[in-house]
Amino acid sequence: MERTPQTLERFLSGLSEGWLQSNEGEGTWNAHEVVEHFIEAEKHNWIPRVESILFEGDKHLFPAFDRFSHLKNISKRTVEEALQEFGSIRMKNLSKLKEFLQSTSYLEKTGLHPEFGIVKLRELLSAWVVHDFTHMAQIVRVMAERYRTDVGPWSAYLGILKRN
Amino acid sequence: MERTPQTLERFLSGLSEGWLQSNEGEGTWNAHEVVEHFIEAEKHNWIPRVESILFEGDKHLFPAFDRFSHLKNISKRTVEEALQEFGSIRMKNLSKLKEFLQSTSYLEKTGLHPEFGIVKLRELLSAWVVHDFTHMAQIVRVMAERYRTDVGPWSAYLGILKRN
Repeated sequence: MERTPQTLERFLSGLSEGWLQSNEGEGTWNAHEVVEHFIEAEKHNWIPRVESILFEGDKHLFPAFDRFSHLKNISKRTVEEALQEFGSIRMKNLSKLKEFLQSTSYLEKTGLHPEFGIVKLRELLSAWVVHDFTHMAQIVRVMAERYRTDVGPWSAYLGILKRN
Repeated sequence: MERTPQTLERFLSGLSEGWLQSNEGEGTWNAHEVVEHFIEAEKHNWIPRVESILFEGDKHLFPAFDRFSHLKNISKRTVEEALQEFGSIRMKNLSKLKEFLQSTSYLEKTGLHPEFGIVKLRELLSAWVVHDFTHMAQIVRVMAERYRTDVGPWSAYLGILKRN
């Protein structure tokens, strides 16, 4: 999980606006917006929910998280600035997590998800990891979209261009 | 395209064998195998086909490329060694490409693909880029597979776990 910001930094930092602003059509996110979503999730989703499980238990609902909050205030900063914030908040959150997880038995502790009901800490932490993967793959897919027609007949062999 | 090896290096280098060897089931590739495939394609696919277009034209079939060649001799080297070879051959190939492309009019030159028939250089080059994206997304997807059941109910929201 400490690799995600570094990997994205290597992939995105310094790219032209053409790459950073291309998306998959109306209502879809570009690469910079995905990075802003990562930051919102670091601030308002993962650690607050870990704390809810550890300190409140499954009698209290998880704090709310708006998956679209980063779109309300599309920041005017560059993607490099966003990547830097993502890197620093991720490292901070991982240290917090290490502090919290003093015993592996904590992994079985439960919280109350507004939709799923009772969930375990270990499921939340796994979801955090796979959430990274989901949005890394999304960024790569968004980039590929830009070349959809340019590849000509090769689209048949380039799996990433198959629409879900 | 010079970012792909660096991005993968940041993502994969130093990972445990558990991550590097996990795949999506029989007949699928793990992350290390994908890196070996990238190297085979650098050696035997992209530049040889660029040369075929520029120096032979569309009267000659492209040189053959075996998409599974990297599986015949699964190398005993580490993924770090493979990433290093990928980085160095990619840089070499990009310099060659820059040398070859002395005029943008070359982009319209054509070659003979064994399956697609006549293809343009610009389509081949676009396919090279999207081939990078396809296999980067594959690596991320293979990683996510490892946590498929661990995420519990979150699988509903984690798009990367939806099977194609």
